[in-house]
Amino acid sequence: MLISNLPTLAAGSFEPDQVVTMLLAFAALLGTARLLGELARLCKQPAILGEILAGVLLGPTIFGAMFPAGYEFLFPKDGPVVYAIESLVTLSAILLLLIAGLEVELSTVWRQGKRALSVATVSMVLPFAVGFGLAWWAPYWMGYVAGSDIDHGKLPFALFIGIALSITALPVIAKILLDMGLAKSELGTVVISAAMLNDLIGWMGFAIVLAMIAPNTAIDPTDTAHLSIGKTIGMTLLFIALVLTAGAWLFNRIIPLIQAYGSWPGAMLGFVIVTALLGAAYTEYIGIHSIFGAFIVGIGIGNCRHLREKVRRTTHDFIGNIFAPLFFASIGLRVNFIEAFDLQLVLVVLAVAIITKLLGGYLGAVWVGMGRRESGAVGMAMCARGAMEIILGQLALDAGLIDQSLFVAIVFMALVTSLISGPGIEKMLARRQPRKLRDYLYEKQVILDMRASTPREAIRELAAVAAQTLDMDYDMIDRAVWAREQIVPTGIGREVAVPHARLPKLSAPTLILGRSFSGIDFNSPDGEEAQIICLLLTAEHDATSQLDLLSLITRSFNDPIVRRDIMRAESFTAILAAVNTNESVPENEGH
Amino acid sequence: MLISNLPTLAAGSFEPDQVVTMLLAFAALLGTARLLGELARLCKQPAILGEILAGVLLGPTIFGAMFPAGYEFLFPKDGPVVYAIESLVTLSAILLLLIAGLEVELSTVWRQGKRALSVATVSMVLPFAVGFGLAWWAPYWMGYVAGSDIDHGKLPFALFIGIALSITALPVIAKILLDMGLAKSELGTVVISAAMLNDLIGWMGFAIVLAMIAPNTAIDPTDTAHLSIGKTIGMTLLFIALVLTAGAWLFNRIIPLIQAYGSWPGAMLGFVIVTALLGAAYTEYIGIHSIFGAFIVGIGIGNCRHLREKVRRTTHDFIGNIFAPLFFASIGLRVNFIEAFDLQLVLVVLAVAIITKLLGGYLGAVWVGMGRRESGAVGMAMCARGAMEIILGQLALDAGLIDQSLFVAIVFMALVTSLISGPGIEKMLARRQPRKLRDYLYEKQVILDMRASTPREAIRELAAVAAQTLDMDYDMIDRAVWAREQIVPTGIGREVAVPHARLPKLSAPTLILGRSFSGIDFNSPDGEEAQIICLLLTAEHDATSQLDLLSLITRSFNDPIVRRDIMRAESFTAILAAVNTNESVPENEGH
Repeated sequence: MLISNLPTLAAGSFEPDQVVTMLLAFAALLGTARLLGELARLCKQPAILGEILAGVLLGPTIFGAMFPAGYEFLFPKDGPVVYAIESLVTLSAILLLLIAGLEVELSTVWRQGKRALSVATVSMVLPFAVGFGLAWWAPYWMGYVAGSDIDHGKLPFALFIGIALSITALPVIAKILLDMGLAKSELGTVVISAAMLNDLIGWMGFAIVLAMIAPNTAIDPTDTAHLSIGKTIGMTLLFIALVLTAGAWLFNRIIPLIQAYGSWPGAMLGFVIVTALLGAAYTEYIGIHSIFGAFIVGIGIGNCRHLREKVRRTTHDFIGNIFAPLFFASIGLRVNFIEAFDLQLVLVVLAVAIITKLLGGYLGAVWVGMGRRESGAVGMAMCARGAMEIILGQLALDAGLIDQSLFVAIVFMALVTSLISGPGIEKMLARRQPRKLRDYLYEKQVILDMRASTPREAIRELAAVAAQTLDMDYDMIDRAVWAREQIVPTGIGREVAVPHARLPKLSAPTLILGRSFSGIDFNSPDGEEAQIICLLLTAEHDATSQLDLLSLITRSFNDPIVRRDIMRAESFTAILAAVNTNESVPENEGH
Repeated sequence: MLISNLPTLAAGSFEPDQVVTMLLAFAALLGTARLLGELARLCKQPAILGEILAGVLLGPTIFGAMFPAGYEFLFPKDGPVVYAIESLVTLSAILLLLIAGLEVELSTVWRQGKRALSVATVSMVLPFAVGFGLAWWAPYWMGYVAGSDIDHGKLPFALFIGIALSITALPVIAKILLDMGLAKSELGTVVISAAMLNDLIGWMGFAIVLAMIAPNTAIDPTDTAHLSIGKTIGMTLLFIALVLTAGAWLFNRIIPLIQAYGSWPGAMLGFVIVTALLGAAYTEYIGIHSIFGAFIVGIGIGNCRHLREKVRRTTHDFIGNIFAPLFFASIGLRVNFIEAFDLQLVLVVLAVAIITKLLGGYLGAVWVGMGRRESGAVGMAMCARGAMEIILGQLALDAGLIDQSLFVAIVFMALVTSLISGPGIEKMLARRQPRKLRDYLYEKQVILDMRASTPREAIRELAAVAAQTLDMDYDMIDRAVWAREQIVPTGIGREVAVPHARLPKLSAPTLILGRSFSGIDFNSPDGEEAQIICLLLTAEHDATSQLDLLSLITRSFNDPIVRRDIMRAESFTAILAAVNTNESVPENEGH
C-alpha cells in the first residue's frame, strides 16, 4: 500500500509525559485562577484581581522561587509544552478581545453623541498628554531604558505610555455600573459610550505604535519582501474601515441567514469564532498583534442588529469563565513580580493614571453641563483600568517596548484603579450597590422545618430566632410583627408570606426564612397556604430597605423552580444554591 | 535589577508567521467542519458526517494531494504549529469525552435494570465474540499486519476489534431518539441505558487493551521505574471505583457549595473542566489515554444530583459546537482516506458490525419480552456507532495497534451505521420524525403585509396564495376554509389566528403565513385582533397532521419575543430566523 509522504498529524509529536505536564499546567492555571477569582468575588472585588494573583502565585514570583524543581516540571523552559501553553494563551487573548469587541455598541455611542465625545476626549487627552510629556521629557522617571536591547527610540515609548494611561477598561466599568443598577441610567450610558470611544481610539493608536516598532517579520507567501511601517498603518486603517463598513453590511446579510438555516446556537458560535480567527490572522500578518483583529471583528459582529442575545451570552459564559482566567493567570508566568517591583515607578504611574483620568472625566462631564457630583462619578468611572491595560502592557513587554518593571507598574495601576472605581462612584453618588437576596441568607437565620401551623405561631417561631440572632428582646419583635400582621395579612401568594416590621435601633435589615411543609394560611390573595415564610425586619429610620427587600423576595420566589428547589433542599447550602443560581446574572465577571 | 533565570512564558517562542499559520489552520479546520456539518444537518444527516468530511477535504486526501505547497504551509510537518494543533486537538478530545460522560445517567441504568442489562449484554457479546473470533482465527482478513512495526501481538489486536465492534454510540443514539420524540419512551430509556452500559464496559475494556500495549513511558517524578501492565490495570480499576464512589460522594458535597457561594455558572464550569483535566492527566500518567480519565470524571460529576441543567447545557453548547467539530475534522489530517481505503476490509467490518449488533439488540430485547417490531427498533438503535468508535480507532492507530486501512474502515463503519440507524428505527416503528414549524415555512407561502381587514378577506387573500402554491382550485380552498371558519372562529388568542380546512387530494400539509399590521378580528377568546394569520391545509385522510401543526403553531407563537420578532422582520429570512432560533433545542449536534 502506498502511503503518501505529505505531513500528517501523527502520534508521538507529544510524549505521554508531556501530555501529563500540559494537562497539569492547564489545570493548575485554570484551577488556581478560578479559585482566587471566586475568593476575590466573595470579598466584593473584581475577579481579575484573584486571577492575576493566581499567576503570580504559580509563576516565578512565588512557586518558582520556593520550589524551582516543581516549577520547572510544570512550566518547562522549552519544548512542546511551552508551545501548547503559548498557543492556548494566544487563543485565550484573541477570544477575550473578541468578547470585549462584542460589547462595544456603536449605536449607543452615536446616541450619546456630544456628551460621550466630550467625556471621551477630555478624559483621553489629559492622561495622554501628561503620560506622553513625562515619558518624553523625563523618560528615565517612567522606566525608559535607552540603549538597551529593548530600545526602539523614545517616540514609540512615549506614545505607548500616553495610550496605556488613557484607555478606560470598558468591560470593568460596564460590570461595575451593571452591578450598581446604573448601566441604563444617563450617567451609565455616557460613561459606557465614552469608554467605548476610548477603547476604539486607544487600540487604533496602539496598533500604530506596534506598526512603528514591528520587527518587520510580516510574512508574504509569494516573496520575502517585508511590509513598511506606512504600509502596515495603511493596511490597519483599511482593515478597520472595511470591517466596520463593508464587513458590517455583510454581517447584516449573513447573520440572519445563519440564524434562519443553521443549527442554533452552534452555527453562530462557529461563525463568530472563525471570523475572529481570520481577523486575528490578518492583523498578525500585517505586523500588528493578532488580538487587534479579533477586537475589530468583535465590534463589527456585535453591531449587527440581527445578532441574538443568546450568542453574546454563550460566548461570554464560556470565554469569560474559562479562557479569560487562563489568560490573566498566564500574566504571572511572564514576570517575577517581586524582583521587577520598582516602588517609585509604581507610585508615579499610579498617581499620573488616577489624577489625570479623574480630572479628565470630571472636566469632560462638567463641560457638557452635568452636575458636579455626577461629574465626579463620571471621573471615578472613567478611572477604571483593567484587562485592556494589562494586555497592552503584555504586548509592549513582548515587543521589547517596555521592561518588566514598567510592566509590573502597569499591572498594579490597572488593578488598583479597578478596585477603587466602584467604591469611588458609590461615594460620589452617596449610593450603595443594590444587594442580592443571597446576601441576607445565613444558616442561623433559616428554620428548615417550622412547627407552627397558624400565622400567630409562625411569627412567634420566627421572632424567637430573630431575637437570638439580633440579641434583642423577643417580646418586642413578636409584638411589632404581630401588630403589623393584624392590619393586613402578609401572604403575597405563590405559597410565600412575608410578615414584617420596622424596629427601632436595628443596625441592618434582617431576614429570617422558615419552611413549612404543612403550609400556613397567611390569607394570600391566591388562597394558597404559605410554605416559605420570610420574616423581614428593618430599622425604623430606614425608609427604603423594606421595599427593596420585599421586591427582591417577590422577584426571586416568583420562579416556581426556585420555590421547588427551596422546598426540596436538604440543607441551608442547598437553599442558598437555589437562590444564587437563579439570581446571578451570567455576566463577564469583571474583566 | 536582578532577573531570575527561572523559565518564564516569554515572547518569541512563536514567530509571527507561525502565529498566522496557527490561526489560519484553526480557522480552516473549524470553519470547514462547521460549514459541512451544517450542510449535513440541512440534508437531515448527523453533523459528524460533514465534520469528518471537512478533515478529509483539508487533509492529505484532497487538499494535500491537489495543493501540496498550500497544505504544507497550513499544516506543517513539524515545529511549533504542529504542537499548537496537537494540543488543541488533545484538549478537544478530552472535553468531548467529558460531555459524553456527563450524559451517562447511572440512575437511569439502574431503573431499567434487567431489560437494559439484557439488551446491553447480548448486543455486546455477539459483536465482540464475532469480532474477536474473526480477528483471532482470520486476522489477515481484519487487516492485521504481523511482524510489522505496529505488531503488538494478536491478543490485544483481537480484543480491540471485538471492543470496537461492540460499543454503541451513546451521544448519537440519544440525539436520534430525542429528535424522534422517543427519548423518554420505554423503548428510548431501554436503548439509552443499554448504550450507557455498553459505553462504560467497552471503555474499561479498551483501557485494559491500552495498558497491555502501553510503551511503558508512564512517568514518575521520583524515580524512573515504569508501571507494569498489571499495575496499570489495577490503577485504572481503582480510579474508576474511586471516582464513582468516593468521588461521587465528594461531588455531592462540593457542588452544592460551589453553586451556593460561587459565581454562576462560571464557578461550576471551571470546576468541571479542571476536574476533567486532572482526571485526564492521571489516566495519561498511568499509561492509558487521557480522554479516558475525562470520561470517568464526566460520569462522576454528571451523576451528582445537585448538578444543574444549565451547566450541562453551557458545556454542551460550547464544547459540542466548537471543540467537537475541531476534533472530528482533525481525524482527516491523520490519514489519506483514498490511499488507505481497502474495499474488502471496509465491507467486512461494515457487515460484521451491522449484522451482529442488529441481531444482538433484537435478541436481547426479545429475551426480556419486548414485541418483535420494538425489538427490531432496539436492534437498529444499538447499531449506531459514532464518535466513540472513531476516537477508539484513532487511539489504536496512534498506539500502533491497527494500520491506516483498518482505521479508515472503522471510520466508514461508524459513519454508515450512524446514517442508517435513524431511518431504520423509523421503518421498524412505522413512525416519522416529528417535524418543526420551520420545515413548513417557504418564502412563497408568506404574505409580509396583508391587505385584508376582515376574516373573510383574509381567508380569500391566503387562499389565493395557497391555490397558486398548490396549483389547486382557488374557489374550492376558499370555500372549505370559510365554511370551517363559520362554525367556530379560529382566533386562538395572543394575536394569532389559524383558519384551516381539510382538502381532498392534498399531498402534504401546507401552511400559508400572513402578517396583518392593522390586525384582523378573528374573534379570539382574549379579544385581541390577530396579527399573525396561519392558513393551515391538510389532507382529508390525514388524521394527525392538523393537530400536530396546530400544536406546533401554538407552542412557537406562545413566546412574545417570537411574535415580536416576526412582526418586526423585514424579510422572509428574518421570520424564519425568529422561528428557528426559538425552536431549536441547543443540543449536541449528533456526535
